[in-house]
Amino acid sequence: MLIFFFFFFGLNVMQICLPHQCREEEVGDAVIEEILRLNEDSRVHGIFLHLPQSFLSKSVRNAIKPQKDVDGSHFEVFTKMFVAAVVICQHVVRSSRRWIQEQQYQPWRLRPLKLQPLSPVPSDIEISRAQTPKPISQLAQEIGLLPEELEAYGNTKAKVHLSLLNRLQHQPNGKYVLVAGITPTPLGEGKSTVTIGLVQALSAHLKLNSFACLRQPSQGPTFGVKGGAAGGGYAQVIPMEEFNLHLTGDIHAITAANNLVAAAIDARILHEATQSDRALYSRLVPSVNGVRCFSPIQMARLQRLGINKSDPSDLTPEEIRAFVRLDLDPEKVTWQRVVDTNDRFLRKITVGQANTEKGHARQTQFDIAVASEIMAILALTDGLGDMRARLGRMVVGSSRNGQPITADDLGVTGALAVLMKDAIKPTLMQTLEGTPVFVHAGPFANIAHGNSSVLADKLALKLVGEEGYVVTEAGFGADIGMEKFFNIKCRTSGLTPDVVVLVATVRALKMHGGGPNVTAGVPLPKEYINENLQLVADGCSNLKKQIQITHLFGVPVIVALNVFKTDTQAEIDMVCRIAEASGASAAVQCHHWSRGGWGSVELAHAVKKVASQKNHFQFLYNLQDSIVEKIRSIAQKVYGADDIELSPEAQAKIDYYNQQGFSALPICMAKTHLSLSHMPEKKGVPTGFILPIRDIRASIGAGFIYPLVGTMSTMPGLPTRPCFYDIDLDPVTEEIKGLF
Amino acid sequence: MLIFFFFFFGLNVMQICLPHQCREEEVGDAVIEEILRLNEDSRVHGIFLHLPQSFLSKSVRNAIKPQKDVDGSHFEVFTKMFVAAVVICQHVVRSSRRWIQEQQYQPWRLRPLKLQPLSPVPSDIEISRAQTPKPISQLAQEIGLLPEELEAYGNTKAKVHLSLLNRLQHQPNGKYVLVAGITPTPLGEGKSTVTIGLVQALSAHLKLNSFACLRQPSQGPTFGVKGGAAGGGYAQVIPMEEFNLHLTGDIHAITAANNLVAAAIDARILHEATQSDRALYSRLVPSVNGVRCFSPIQMARLQRLGINKSDPSDLTPEEIRAFVRLDLDPEKVTWQRVVDTNDRFLRKITVGQANTEKGHARQTQFDIAVASEIMAILALTDGLGDMRARLGRMVVGSSRNGQPITADDLGVTGALAVLMKDAIKPTLMQTLEGTPVFVHAGPFANIAHGNSSVLADKLALKLVGEEGYVVTEAGFGADIGMEKFFNIKCRTSGLTPDVVVLVATVRALKMHGGGPNVTAGVPLPKEYINENLQLVADGCSNLKKQIQITHLFGVPVIVALNVFKTDTQAEIDMVCRIAEASGASAAVQCHHWSRGGWGSVELAHAVKKVASQKNHFQFLYNLQDSIVEKIRSIAQKVYGADDIELSPEAQAKIDYYNQQGFSALPICMAKTHLSLSHMPEKKGVPTGFILPIRDIRASIGAGFIYPLVGTMSTMPGLPTRPCFYDIDLDPVTEEIKGLF
Repeated sequence: MLIFFFFFFGLNVMQICLPHQCREEEVGDAVIEEILRLNEDSRVHGIFLHLPQSFLSKSVRNAIKPQKDVDGSHFEVFTKMFVAAVVICQHVVRSSRRWIQEQQYQPWRLRPLKLQPLSPVPSDIEISRAQTPKPISQLAQEIGLLPEELEAYGNTKAKVHLSLLNRLQHQPNGKYVLVAGITPTPLGEGKSTVTIGLVQALSAHLKLNSFACLRQPSQGPTFGVKGGAAGGGYAQVIPMEEFNLHLTGDIHAITAANNLVAAAIDARILHEATQSDRALYSRLVPSVNGVRCFSPIQMARLQRLGINKSDPSDLTPEEIRAFVRLDLDPEKVTWQRVVDTNDRFLRKITVGQANTEKGHARQTQFDIAVASEIMAILALTDGLGDMRARLGRMVVGSSRNGQPITADDLGVTGALAVLMKDAIKPTLMQTLEGTPVFVHAGPFANIAHGNSSVLADKLALKLVGEEGYVVTEAGFGADIGMEKFFNIKCRTSGLTPDVVVLVATVRALKMHGGGPNVTAGVPLPKEYINENLQLVADGCSNLKKQIQITHLFGVPVIVALNVFKTDTQAEIDMVCRIAEASGASAAVQCHHWSRGGWGSVELAHAVKKVASQKNHFQFLYNLQDSIVEKIRSIAQKVYGADDIELSPEAQAKIDYYNQQGFSALPICMAKTHLSLSHMPEKKGVPTGFILPIRDIRASIGAGFIYPLVGTMSTMPGLPTRPCFYDIDLDPVTEEIKGLF
Repeated sequence: MLIFFFFFFGLNVMQICLPHQCREEEVGDAVIEEILRLNEDSRVHGIFLHLPQSFLSKSVRNAIKPQKDVDGSHFEVFTKMFVAAVVICQHVVRSSRRWIQEQQYQPWRLRPLKLQPLSPVPSDIEISRAQTPKPISQLAQEIGLLPEELEAYGNTKAKVHLSLLNRLQHQPNGKYVLVAGITPTPLGEGKSTVTIGLVQALSAHLKLNSFACLRQPSQGPTFGVKGGAAGGGYAQVIPMEEFNLHLTGDIHAITAANNLVAAAIDARILHEATQSDRALYSRLVPSVNGVRCFSPIQMARLQRLGINKSDPSDLTPEEIRAFVRLDLDPEKVTWQRVVDTNDRFLRKITVGQANTEKGHARQTQFDIAVASEIMAILALTDGLGDMRARLGRMVVGSSRNGQPITADDLGVTGALAVLMKDAIKPTLMQTLEGTPVFVHAGPFANIAHGNSSVLADKLALKLVGEEGYVVTEAGFGADIGMEKFFNIKCRTSGLTPDVVVLVATVRALKMHGGGPNVTAGVPLPKEYINENLQLVADGCSNLKKQIQITHLFGVPVIVALNVFKTDTQAEIDMVCRIAEASGASAAVQCHHWSRGGWGSVELAHAVKKVASQKNHFQFLYNLQDSIVEKIRSIAQKVYGADDIELSPEAQAKIDYYNQQGFSALPICMAKTHLSLSHMPEKKGVPTGFILPIRDIRASIGAGFIYPLVGTMSTMPGLPTRPCFYDIDLDPVTEEIKGLF
């Protein structure tokens, strides 16, 4: 008996056939037995009896579970088509068991997309549009996902179920590669393109399973100042417009959840201000058909208040007062509303000015959506239960007597989890060469940790398998993004990195060597266009320092020089020579932007070699160290500061967090990325400075404390001529124009 | 030669087989000819050569277009599996042509889902969860959609491509059924459940193709006061939580587009206030590599200004000034920001209070997202080109010299179209009985027209075919929702309705008959629980009036009495008797809430009978009538007012709109839905009143003028105990609890 597997309207169908000339009595029982086995296999959606009429006895037909009966149900046409047809092919006996095993088979049967790079390199959108992506369901099947683990969003994006982590729990993890950068110019040095170029090289050219895990960009800037986040040139995620726009709605879900908390806060303040304890209590714990009871989330609040009662009629007036009054101090609400739009006029606003709000106006602000603590939680959580718990712990402000008030106190936790239930699933896309990419979460890199999600990395590490590679990216320079990747993200996930790829550009090195300012939107000074070995040599101080920072964590580093067409061979050679002399395990030039994965093959080989070596990963500090010690060790060991200086506000916050028991959280520095110091204009390797800590805040749900070094804008604006002037949609071809 | 069709990883694959023992020379050419034909058929994604090795000559293989070569490319495993296999089944010769014809085959091969209603009826979420929806791709295939016309969003929702309208352009439309209601109580009378119950009866019980077209609800109220919009009881769209939450992101897209316009307005005001004409011009028309040119949208603005020049260097200082300065009057900005959250504190706010906004603070407001004009446009547009044009025409305010300023003037039109490119595709879902539903657009029923999208109705009318039924719903009572359906939606779409189903409840009729107030959240007075024939008899005045209103438009009406368990037989019989005596073509009782489609079979039969009769549909007024005449005819003929009374503001607006050439637009009355008059407390059929028009506004992009009768709240709030207290997510089962 032969069992073939095929897909059928997205279902896994098992087709049972028989060798020629065999008689019913010979195989009838075997057929039924096989049917019963397939009945119980949850991965089999349907069974197709591919038998001569004489074999289709009632007993055989009835053996099939109704819900798996493909012939009997809605595909009569196909039954007619296949029944009575007998196939025999001795050399291709494939059982469904074999197919199921193959879901874990390594290496992938990946079908790369061909790339024929043009010169000069066209615009990002033109390159993206010129390539036809594989159906996402095909890519998913190529990398071993089961159909029921995939939720397609159109034909080029799909969410992946977290159940995959259970199915592959015994699969060893692949190699974990972090792409970080030297201190960048305001133009950025191409970490994302290096990340994508590297996986294109690993998967499409070296035929090694590899996954890129990227952050989802905010939609706001897409319409402000040019510059996408899907990579660029011939190292891109496609379709780039999907990547840069709504994607699968995760940021919209975060916006909805964040703003529900905000609405709940102000509404609660108003209701408490205008109602008696009794009135509040009778509304918060209403009598339904004569019965009053606490909802589970209200029971949880009672327990936090130390009230161990479950019958609403048992509470004393004092207990009722404690229960119904969060007593939020309007001056001490720290929760902000968010929009995913560059709307500078929302940086400082007054809300509640309508008569219906009875004079409870207060000043507050909107942040850009990705600055929401909920985004940081999405990036750090390891599952639904953990996400729900973190959402409940979020502190939104404090009461008039100084107690922290949480989302749980507002009773909104469950609703937030419901709003985020799909956002927690990473989104699968593909590179220009048809290799897999996860896009998931994109927290700020200053007030948050600036790394993509733990869940995407975990899923990818299982999917690539032991011999595979997962390449993820940390925002900003290594002194910020990489330090947070190690001390916050890896600490949370328990994953340990195998190698760091440190991205450098001749442009940035020249700036560190004393070159003139580099400003977005302004033509580059000649120093950056003509060869200048002296500037490069001097600027390598920053590269050397960032290599040393990586070694602090015991992880080997490979320098990837992202080559621009203005770079000369002498400049390139000099950087690679100095990098290796400074302790880099390797230093290679990359041409992915102009050549795709082929231009990063050398980097891929280096990664393969270095990642196979054992390393001695370690954290920079212990969580048990005091908040001050933790900040100081980052400032001194990473930034090279002589010491730190706390403002009175900062000191007061530290005392408050100690008192609240928040002191054992990791530190998330909110510092400029344009210098190792807190002074953006200080390039190279600044020394002899004291790092001033202006204020300290905490994201208790996300699980970190963030000291503010200088002021951080959490709401970008629109320039005089936003790039939306060039963006348009062809109503006939549906093609997007002018998007990067 | 036989050609089989099957699905293969979501692709349409044609499988070419040969009869037994035939020799190559006999059929070789025929095979190649067939391959070449399939090559050119866009609906065929792949070709599978199901032939013995001897037939697989190079010429045959090479005949297949590379992109359609399934064997040769990525499914080697299946090639091995099938090649050399020969099938013969003379009685099932099916060609791919036949299969393609079947996409239009009527009636549908719909596989309904079985329903076993319980008593007492469980909660909506319990009923929804107890039913397993069909894979949406299966439903799509059952109703004749091609795979490439579908964009799945998970397994229970999918967007449908507008290209379907071209493919089925020669297919005659089905019958067009509108569900409207009598003047409701604040609790609503169940139009949505009637709509869903009716299609469940038509499709699942009468086996007639039928489609429900529903509005997408705002997400905000989902977390405020209980009550979903997916129907209720055994007449629901499933999964109801998907329907009530993010769905496929359309409202999020509207929010993003709406707020991009808002950000562009304030940023532009700021930039104009702080820059000289020259500075603005050099930024708006920058020199790129030494070349300056206008973008297409800037050319369009020049033309509106009467400046017929295309070279930026040719403009005079006066022309430059006119071009760069929209000169928006901050006091006259009519565009508001939106969120899809019940956030009462945003009803009146002051923005721009940060130092970076240099003192340009101004007072404005947020509306709930569905109140955005962009939602009204989505509901009325007939395609991408039309939507783009409407978005560009949206008036956001006026200049200091009184000129209307549009989205086109801001240069943002193309970006808005890009943000809305997916939202324009209707979302396919299913009822509890597995029948198809389109969910698309949900504009306000007071400041907008309160009807679901024209596009969804058009797609559905083609899909059901000539003998089929499309049932759509109009918000509020017939005096508002139905009047707007006819005078605005049908006028825009060119579609004409065949029958109106007018929903009534004994509860609402008793209220109109003089029963005590009905208030949400408060137990019903005894009059509504015990039989009271007098109240019912008196209350039928409202039912009779609404029937007359329907007849004004020349459309027959069926009264559907939505039966509650407290209704007595005598009350039910009385309503039906009076309804028929009042001119209803039929009056039937409906039990869909407790019994599903089976409970609405009688209504379905009535609809089938009445819809087949010819009717004489006509509009209530001509667009050429003056604004005042149009308002007056609605007030007098529909509401029963003696006359209208214009406030000075209203009169001034009318003069302004006349002067701007906006007077030929239809009228969209913003009036309370709780009375035929403007006085919510006046039940039954109020007479002898003058309808006061407080103010008049216009949605130029959507294409209507909306007079304000009284004040309309465009931002709901949260009660003391929002229903989010009961909502939670089980982290293990992922089941949602407490949602309605």
